[in-house]
Amino acid sequence: MMSPLLETEIDDGVVQEVHRVARAARLASRRLALLTRGEKDAALLAMADALVEQAEQVERANAEDLQRGADAGMPQNLLDRLRFDAGRVADSAEGLRTVATLPDPVGEIVRGSRLANGLAIRQVRVPMGVVGMIYEARPNVSVDAAGLALKSGNAVILRGGSAASSTNAALVDVLRGAMSARGLPPAAVSLLVGGGRDSGRALMTARGLVDLVIPRGGADLINTVVREASVPVIETGIGNCHVYVDASADVDMAVRIVVNAKTHRTSVCNAAESLLVHQDIADAVLPRIMKEFTAAGVTVHGDEAMAGFAQAQDTPYVPITDADDDTEFLSLDISARVVRDLDTALAHVQEHTSAHSEAIVTQDRAAADRWVAEIDAAAVLVNASTRFTDGGEFGFGAEIGISTQKLHARGPMALAELTSTKWVVEGQGQTR
Amino acid sequence: MMSPLLETEIDDGVVQEVHRVARAARLASRRLALLTRGEKDAALLAMADALVEQAEQVERANAEDLQRGADAGMPQNLLDRLRFDAGRVADSAEGLRTVATLPDPVGEIVRGSRLANGLAIRQVRVPMGVVGMIYEARPNVSVDAAGLALKSGNAVILRGGSAASSTNAALVDVLRGAMSARGLPPAAVSLLVGGGRDSGRALMTARGLVDLVIPRGGADLINTVVREASVPVIETGIGNCHVYVDASADVDMAVRIVVNAKTHRTSVCNAAESLLVHQDIADAVLPRIMKEFTAAGVTVHGDEAMAGFAQAQDTPYVPITDADDDTEFLSLDISARVVRDLDTALAHVQEHTSAHSEAIVTQDRAAADRWVAEIDAAAVLVNASTRFTDGGEFGFGAEIGISTQKLHARGPMALAELTSTKWVVEGQGQTR
Repeated sequence: MMSPLLETEIDDGVVQEVHRVARAARLASRRLALLTRGEKDAALLAMADALVEQAEQVERANAEDLQRGADAGMPQNLLDRLRFDAGRVADSAEGLRTVATLPDPVGEIVRGSRLANGLAIRQVRVPMGVVGMIYEARPNVSVDAAGLALKSGNAVILRGGSAASSTNAALVDVLRGAMSARGLPPAAVSLLVGGGRDSGRALMTARGLVDLVIPRGGADLINTVVREASVPVIETGIGNCHVYVDASADVDMAVRIVVNAKTHRTSVCNAAESLLVHQDIADAVLPRIMKEFTAAGVTVHGDEAMAGFAQAQDTPYVPITDADDDTEFLSLDISARVVRDLDTALAHVQEHTSAHSEAIVTQDRAAADRWVAEIDAAAVLVNASTRFTDGGEFGFGAEIGISTQKLHARGPMALAELTSTKWVVEGQGQTR
Repeated sequence: MMSPLLETEIDDGVVQEVHRVARAARLASRRLALLTRGEKDAALLAMADALVEQAEQVERANAEDLQRGADAGMPQNLLDRLRFDAGRVADSAEGLRTVATLPDPVGEIVRGSRLANGLAIRQVRVPMGVVGMIYEARPNVSVDAAGLALKSGNAVILRGGSAASSTNAALVDVLRGAMSARGLPPAAVSLLVGGGRDSGRALMTARGLVDLVIPRGGADLINTVVREASVPVIETGIGNCHVYVDASADVDMAVRIVVNAKTHRTSVCNAAESLLVHQDIADAVLPRIMKEFTAAGVTVHGDEAMAGFAQAQDTPYVPITDADDDTEFLSLDISARVVRDLDTALAHVQEHTSAHSEAIVTQDRAAADRWVAEIDAAAVLVNASTRFTDGGEFGFGAEIGISTQKLHARGPMALAELTSTKWVVEGQGQTR
């Protein structure tokens, strides 16, 4: 029941520094909450322009990070993620321009009515206040978070992976410069530098100063934040996503969806990690799936029934372990089982779901209805790849993460999810 | 940064027992999620009937609790709160009948669209799953929570104050009986008995088994839950509510609202605890407010400017302390200051607000607009008593608490706030 980390105190100097940053952010957030959409959009466009104009400065800082990473033996896939060249700077700038085109969530009236006693009540979207982002060495997250926070009227405190510290410092420098030039408070976008792990811990325990912390990264990072934070948290991004091929599935469609969900991009949370196939359709569908898996280099962690299908197509195969059923591989691996019926599939997913995205392939309306009703996840999909659970695909124009919790936000999060509400009650002297 | 309570392990036997209860609740919650509105409403009416029929049994159990409380020297106001006689049983039953009349939140489509690629997406309200309630010795909360949880398709685990243990056991017995008779799983409503403080701690750390914990009670209880819980929490019910009388206020209205907000009911979170009066209206409004305070027995914790007004009307007066500005008295006490102008009032409230309910009395449109825009609270009120921040007053038909946090729910919480959402994505074989 205890977190081992809580046994060590957070360095007091780091706490003081993080609280100083948070207080400045809080003050800035009061200004941000009152900005008009026009002011915010103009600032976003200025930030985008500044990024493109100063791309070289960002690239130079990124080169330092890359060099340090390479020297420290950082694996290639992490170096790729860390890279932030002029092309990626331009992509991020384009992202800010897109955010400028989106409607302002602040001020939206969610519901309202006039009460019998004449009081007019309305529930209005307001900014959260100060949002903390804790994430890995991915510089694009710094720009995305700054843009989405500004548009939703929030101050943001960035706590990015230390491997990206030079890049993040350069980015925040550019963004703050553009904001200051337009009269916005620079403390609207702050970066925690130094303090190591303690700065993140101080951020997630700064109750009253920080309104929300969003961790983005692997399971370890997210679990640490959930365990240690006293500030409200939105969990994101762990996906042990299943695709279940029902007896009645269209075979072509099933092959297409399974292969796309597993292989389109393996490092993302909405990739399929687990395949369930109804026994009655196994002979029709599995030879074709295995053939495609072989071509794509997928390793099947399969039950006994899967072994034969894999071997027949030369698909890399290992016997499934209990742990595999709960593993988010984020690689060209998939756990796979042949199941007796829909009930078995439902029970398996209910037991092993990470409540991210769960897909069924079926032509049977009743089976689809049961899947939609009985699987409790951020997204339940019928005859579509799990890869569609995404803010961009859903038409949100942007995404700050995919919530896998039930409180406040579930699924892709964009601008509305970065707001709270307040009730405005207007009367003519009413009392009780 | 450390919670002293976390230094002690939770008793393992208690953890096992709470997890056993939570797993049963979880299983029950799957059934509850699929119930139709008709099934739920019929069960609610049966529960109400059973309560009335078995009121004597409940009263007898309550008499035991009251006797135990009296023997232990429980103060009169707590004994009053603990009392659950036939009249209160009937009120609670009536509450269940009201919940039966409310629309079912489950299945409501919050938003949806058809994407360019043909995918149909919709965001649908679903139950949270298992909700834990941690509260003091107030038996009516047990019935309210059971009713609201059932209607919103959730299983609920009750952890009420031990002083009400016999009453709660009797109530849950009656409610479960009525549910079983209608074929509903009795584990839908569970009561944690025994285990002392550790049972609450085990409940709030049962991640993966419990989806949400709502603490209802005083500041100590709520702060403990917020600090210790790893399950998502909704904070409720601390209200250091202000009434600010602006220079332009209608004097009659100001007197009426201030007196109502302070004295209508003092033990509730939406009572006024702090009065600010613009210096230009002090002479007109304060003699009348003080006169009413004297009649009602209110003690003013006032600044120097207040002292003269209080003395002139024989109003009990003590000099204000810094702590008073942040105190939720829950009694016939109020902190009171004369302020120079609206800006001073705004700054004071921004510093001392508990973000519950903050009221301005003004005839000045610009002042009202600034109040509404610049005060960040669950409810901002113009020319109305703070006492209106209430689920019943807002027309929700019921209330499970008033959230003072920004995440998920803010202000009065009823059925919709006990739900999450899921995205349903329906396609014809789409892949990325």
